[in-house]
Amino acid sequence: MRYLITFSYDGSKYGGYQKQLDINTIQAELETALTKLNNKETSVVASGRTDRGVHAINQKAHFDLDINITPDKLKMALNSLIPNDIYVKNVEVVDSNFHARFNVKSKEYVYKINLGEYNPIEKDYIYQYGKSLDVEAMNKGIKYFIGMHNFKSLVAADDVRDNYDREIISANIEVENDIMTISFVGTGFLRYMVRNMVGLLIEMGEGKRKASDVLTILEKEDRKASGKTAPACGLYLKNVNY
Amino acid sequence: MRYLITFSYDGSKYGGYQKQLDINTIQAELETALTKLNNKETSVVASGRTDRGVHAINQKAHFDLDINITPDKLKMALNSLIPNDIYVKNVEVVDSNFHARFNVKSKEYVYKINLGEYNPIEKDYIYQYGKSLDVEAMNKGIKYFIGMHNFKSLVAADDVRDNYDREIISANIEVENDIMTISFVGTGFLRYMVRNMVGLLIEMGEGKRKASDVLTILEKEDRKASGKTAPACGLYLKNVNY
Repeated sequence: MRYLITFSYDGSKYGGYQKQLDINTIQAELETALTKLNNKETSVVASGRTDRGVHAINQKAHFDLDINITPDKLKMALNSLIPNDIYVKNVEVVDSNFHARFNVKSKEYVYKINLGEYNPIEKDYIYQYGKSLDVEAMNKGIKYFIGMHNFKSLVAADDVRDNYDREIISANIEVENDIMTISFVGTGFLRYMVRNMVGLLIEMGEGKRKASDVLTILEKEDRKASGKTAPACGLYLKNVNY
Repeated sequence: MRYLITFSYDGSKYGGYQKQLDINTIQAELETALTKLNNKETSVVASGRTDRGVHAINQKAHFDLDINITPDKLKMALNSLIPNDIYVKNVEVVDSNFHARFNVKSKEYVYKINLGEYNPIEKDYIYQYGKSLDVEAMNKGIKYFIGMHNFKSLVAADDVRDNYDREIISANIEVENDIMTISFVGTGFLRYMVRNMVGLLIEMGEGKRKASDVLTILEKEDRKASGKTAPACGLYLKNVNY
């Protein structure tokens, strides 16, 4: 039986979602728990990886189990076996050809920035920028990301692939009590793409770039054309839609 | 010269505010930094301790330095020497007979409870209660704490002292997006007093006790008369007023 789980995690204590040798990862924690439950090596396929320090509010993953267990019982069993900084919110049975990565229609990421004074209590959860930003300039700039673009200029420097075209469906900035929340919905995201878009937006908020620079940078198709990568701690995978 | 500092900290990685052997504490971190700056053993006197896992938004402390340093420079120097889960927000010079503990006029504590689904990202910062509570019943009950009372029934079990009388000036409950915030302003608080008041309020919210039980319990002057101690992670020292 194939199951789809929705889960959240505090990424600050993990070396990222994806399994690696000698590093604590979310995937390894889930697979250890499922292997125990299923009495055999069981692997998990997520909607995609999240990097070291990045959090998830609603990450999704599928896996196959040989044992007969109801979604409710599986949710309880899994949550009892994984560490308490990962939490399975929902379990459902899906068709055996459902695929948590290939079937993704869109994803939503949010990025949080503290424009106010440094807050040690939120340091792993909100980027402690600590100064004001020109929200109007950023709101103008963020609109240039919307649509289908070649995002090669905004990808991780070592990311080599055939196709860098991705579509941003919507993008938005809100500020409440000195916390800026930047959200992006898109059909797919490349590695570091959100953090690099946020890095550019911050430079606009600082008056160092103008809104239309986004197009010039994207046209160059060169990582060196863009700016800094915003820190991982402010980034959340908020939703995965199928 | 005597200095008064206002500082915040994430209590989740410390064994409490107060210095102890073999345990990482906030006080020890501050004293290590100050001893380095002052070139001699320097001790810090806070408004009071906070227990293991309890956070502070505006804790206050005083200390004396022999060196000549402006408040602004001292703020920068201290923040560069302490870990990034403690942050000095303000430094001021005070009179040499000012005392951070003896001069306290009132303190404010807040306690945060998540009534919604378990959130692994907030597990060290908001008590993950995970069910709804009868806010109206709790709002009725909390009023009974206001005023001068003998709080012996609501103190840490091993707390032995002459005088358990403390005055609660105001107390309030708010709920926003499933997060309940309970706040207390009082002239002084005994050890575990806030967490024990919150424990009682939760039992009221569960329909297990009625509002006026507060008076019956206080009259007994016996810790066994009250209920559970709410977990440390939800508690914040919010303000200290002189």
